[in-house]
Amino acid sequence: MAVYTEVTDEALRAFLADYPLGALRAFRGIAEGVENSNYALKTASGDFILTLYEKRVDPRELPWFLALMEHLAARGIDCPLPVKATDGVALRTLAGRPAAICTFLPGVWPRRVRPEHCAPLGGALARLHLAGADFEEVRPNGLGPRAWAPLLDRCRAGGDAVQPGLIAELDAALAGILAAWPAEGALPTGQIHADLFPDNVFFLDGPEGSPRVSGLIDFYFACTDLLAYDLAVCLNAWCFETDGSYNVTKAHALLAAYQRLRPMATAERAALPALCRGAAIRFLLTRLYDWMMTPPGAMVTRKDPLEYLRRLRFFAGAEGPSSLGL
Amino acid sequence: MAVYTEVTDEALRAFLADYPLGALRAFRGIAEGVENSNYALKTASGDFILTLYEKRVDPRELPWFLALMEHLAARGIDCPLPVKATDGVALRTLAGRPAAICTFLPGVWPRRVRPEHCAPLGGALARLHLAGADFEEVRPNGLGPRAWAPLLDRCRAGGDAVQPGLIAELDAALAGILAAWPAEGALPTGQIHADLFPDNVFFLDGPEGSPRVSGLIDFYFACTDLLAYDLAVCLNAWCFETDGSYNVTKAHALLAAYQRLRPMATAERAALPALCRGAAIRFLLTRLYDWMMTPPGAMVTRKDPLEYLRRLRFFAGAEGPSSLGL
Repeated sequence: MAVYTEVTDEALRAFLADYPLGALRAFRGIAEGVENSNYALKTASGDFILTLYEKRVDPRELPWFLALMEHLAARGIDCPLPVKATDGVALRTLAGRPAAICTFLPGVWPRRVRPEHCAPLGGALARLHLAGADFEEVRPNGLGPRAWAPLLDRCRAGGDAVQPGLIAELDAALAGILAAWPAEGALPTGQIHADLFPDNVFFLDGPEGSPRVSGLIDFYFACTDLLAYDLAVCLNAWCFETDGSYNVTKAHALLAAYQRLRPMATAERAALPALCRGAAIRFLLTRLYDWMMTPPGAMVTRKDPLEYLRRLRFFAGAEGPSSLGL
Repeated sequence: MAVYTEVTDEALRAFLADYPLGALRAFRGIAEGVENSNYALKTASGDFILTLYEKRVDPRELPWFLALMEHLAARGIDCPLPVKATDGVALRTLAGRPAAICTFLPGVWPRRVRPEHCAPLGGALARLHLAGADFEEVRPNGLGPRAWAPLLDRCRAGGDAVQPGLIAELDAALAGILAAWPAEGALPTGQIHADLFPDNVFFLDGPEGSPRVSGLIDFYFACTDLLAYDLAVCLNAWCFETDGSYNVTKAHALLAAYQRLRPMATAERAALPALCRGAAIRFLLTRLYDWMMTPPGAMVTRKDPLEYLRRLRFFAGAEGPSSLGL
């Protein structure tokens, strides 16, 4: 759920006075996005999104995220463009929190992923990677392989209460993933989104009625990491059906469309199964941690960590890249 | 909190195909409104609100609410206007729920009420009452005086756990309120909003910078009842400070602006203190019931019932209409 921080009208007016956006027309909390407070903002200049960054986001990292979005938008990626105030600064303060206004992106995120979504997604991801190639400032992946063992340790005490034997299974799986992980420099790296779930991708119908990507949002997990890891995240997030089965048609559409714009190196293709297991354990561990740490009365949707245990098991049993749709 | 019902893109597209609103442009859940699921909907024709009516709303009552909004909008009240599909019907079904699209209203609801909000509010309420005068179909107030004793009975078992002695205090207060309640036909009745809290009133800056009402929303408690009871609800909802004190300046501004358009009868003025106690106990009882019945893990903000106990005590101790701002 969203909107943790309430903004008084006086504070909002004072904040908007620093922008060349004209008179305030509307301001509504958006029920989407888990990490930050998002408001739909309408002014005489049009529609915008106002984001107040909540505690999970490190304020020192915000300039990197905003600079990346500005870089990508300037290269034609349909991502939120931070709007600068009249003094040229996009990152500001509102209601005691870091805050920024970004452009509004049209489109609807798919509540139910269809195979037709996956090719446009693959193309958009490849374009994102290509557009990020000349963004040089590095942000390490705070939730990459080095973070997983410490995260698993923090789940050790209560994890088996979520499912008996869970921690032993994850210990073994993690050891295997880390052993199979590509060596530093072995695979192409760059700026990745690292959280490109369906609710972060907007679609509109194209001229022939088929969906096309109209927007990529929520870059607050973006980082500098293996490009193919972004594909592994997407295969996890887009290609499983509600019954837990892997939809190889979706995966193939995603990977083929991606490779039309950025063909994967042989080493990337070989590493993909391990990267998929890595992405599965990353989301499994953060969900497990949140599950264990979220007080029952909290106003946050707890996401089932065990969904990703099933995905991890699938990828562990997958026989080579072709069974993943490559 | 809002958005209980998720709508798949296929279902949304099929639903919109029945409307003359042009291509879908955006669809975002709104984090406001407690009773129903609300979505901000953007099409080639502009901005709209799509509401899915959740379990608390009786589907048989929806035609009355939609007809009232249509009636009021036709008389110049800035309230949501239900949009009819091409077959002329506004109330439809989406994702298994009754659903309707209404026009989008500009403005911002006041997170912190200032005295300058209260005169425009009073004027808007009077215009609402005048515009509803020729809407003849009656909807009894399901949360009016007859509902309070049964509601208190349902809180009896666990109420004192919320505050010791609470039930005895409410028994005595309710007996006094019902004894003082105006006899049938003694006061002017009509169509009232019955829930005109700050988050249901949008404001924009007028030409001189002072706030003017740009929209009244959420008519799903509207009913046919004493017009002055709507004033009593507003005095409860708009005129107390966070420290619990009654702001007579706000109350006077509200009442005076109301009376410029619809002067209150002598009997209404005399009844106002009892009506204010009634409104206080109505919100106290529904909040108390929700507080006791809401499981700790539910995704709903529980509102503190004791806030209204303090308001009830204030009105019980108030010495006549003048101390209320009349």
